Amino acid sequence: MTIRTFDLGADKHKEGLDGLTRVAPNPALGLRAVRFCLAEPRLFLTQLRAILRASTYGKVKILLPLLSSVGEIEQALALIAQAKETLREQKIDFDPGIEVGGMIEIPAAVLSIGAFTSRLDFLSIGTNDLIQYTLAVDRSDEAVSQLYDALHPAVIKLIALAISTSNKAGIPVAVCGEMAGDIRFTRLLLGMGLLDFSMHPAHILSVKQRVLTSDLQAAKALVARMRNVDEPAKLAALMAKLNA
Amino acid sequence: MTIRTFDLGADKHKEGLDGLTRVAPNPALGLRAVRFCLAEPRLFLTQLRAILRASTYGKVKILLPLLSSVGEIEQALALIAQAKETLREQKIDFDPGIEVGGMIEIPAAVLSIGAFTSRLDFLSIGTNDLIQYTLAVDRSDEAVSQLYDALHPAVIKLIALAISTSNKAGIPVAVCGEMAGDIRFTRLLLGMGLLDFSMHPAHILSVKQRVLTSDLQAAKALVARMRNVDEPAKLAALMAKLNA
Repeated sequence: MTIRTFDLGADKHKEGLDGLTRVAPNPALGLRAVRFCLAEPRLFLTQLRAILRASTYGKVKILLPLLSSVGEIEQALALIAQAKETLREQKIDFDPGIEVGGMIEIPAAVLSIGAFTSRLDFLSIGTNDLIQYTLAVDRSDEAVSQLYDALHPAVIKLIALAISTSNKAGIPVAVCGEMAGDIRFTRLLLGMGLLDFSMHPAHILSVKQRVLTSDLQAAKALVARMRNVDEPAKLAALMAKLNA
Repeated sequence: MTIRTFDLGADKHKEGLDGLTRVAPNPALGLRAVRFCLAEPRLFLTQLRAILRASTYGKVKILLPLLSSVGEIEQALALIAQAKETLREQKIDFDPGIEVGGMIEIPAAVLSIGAFTSRLDFLSIGTNDLIQYTLAVDRSDEAVSQLYDALHPAVIKLIALAISTSNKAGIPVAVCGEMAGDIRFTRLLLGMGLLDFSMHPAHILSVKQRVLTSDLQAAKALVARMRNVDEPAKLAALMAKLNA
């Protein structure tokens, strides 16, 4: 079981935490997710100790959302070490080798991913937020949501870069977000080298069926070309070929 | 003279346009700048005709802010053609060869910049917004502004990519935003191949002095190494060497 630490803010509600939060001019670019946790270490340590205590009852992993920098990774890892130390002092059991992973959902994380693969045990690419920030488009804002485009050439390049770099580094990488459960993108992600698709259970059968009817080598060859394309029309033509 | 078309929204005020605008959940990711203009073509055409009319009195260029996609470029170019057609019908003079450029300030634009260099006459990299979106940090939000970092490895890679690709394509490229007027970044930008720095007049003398005391070949060699760095500590060491 992978437990994502508090991913509050922006589109997710902070019920019961009203005293700690405030209205930001741009919540999606503000104090959310791991940023909020690092700003409220007591709250974060409570959650980390709870996850650690659960880790004696079965394999549990910790997943940190919205990381953008090495500083945040190191602060979060230091707090996890501190939570372990507290439990040791209290003689409470936990899995000392608990794995810690990070969400890759900010362009900066993809573009400096070597600093993430060297510090974390696994990665999970959150395509919803990654697309939002890459395009500077709030997909929940209907005035601009038509600009939200999972097939923008820049999005393809970033997701492909994140997957291939993680694979080369030998770090397990998953994709979560709507792309992973949408069969229009299954061959694209397979062709990028993805092995781990995270999705709503309702999509598992259709995606599995799609995987079984895909030619992996052909997908990889097409995706290798798609990664170098800047023109959306050319990309669309290659996508049509991939999904034919 | 380069005239940027309406760059309203987010940090810029829309006085007198209250009827056309509304509160967005995330204004910086919403209907601002060229997005707003394309959604309000009558307003945009009025500005475009005014710029065109001014172009008979001296060399004028049009600069489109916040472009993220080919669709937006093509819509804006079509409206410029329409504004020209209206003036022709009214027998009003304008410069038929007026140059049209685009602001590169969204990660998606940098990562598909070939589609921009092939359609526009010149580019201007807006570092303030580019950094903001790349890091998903609202620099005007004091809860997270400490995460705003012009020297994040991802930012260096994107700015270097935008400049080098534009230079290779033979398209003039400038940098505007605070980095261009800050002598800490002068050698970095020179080393990326930048020739055109856009800044507040107050900074011209200090930046010029910095340029005159810089070794361009040494800067280019160091920046070529910086473009491949994911580790902020290593990048900081190379920056210190560059500015020594």
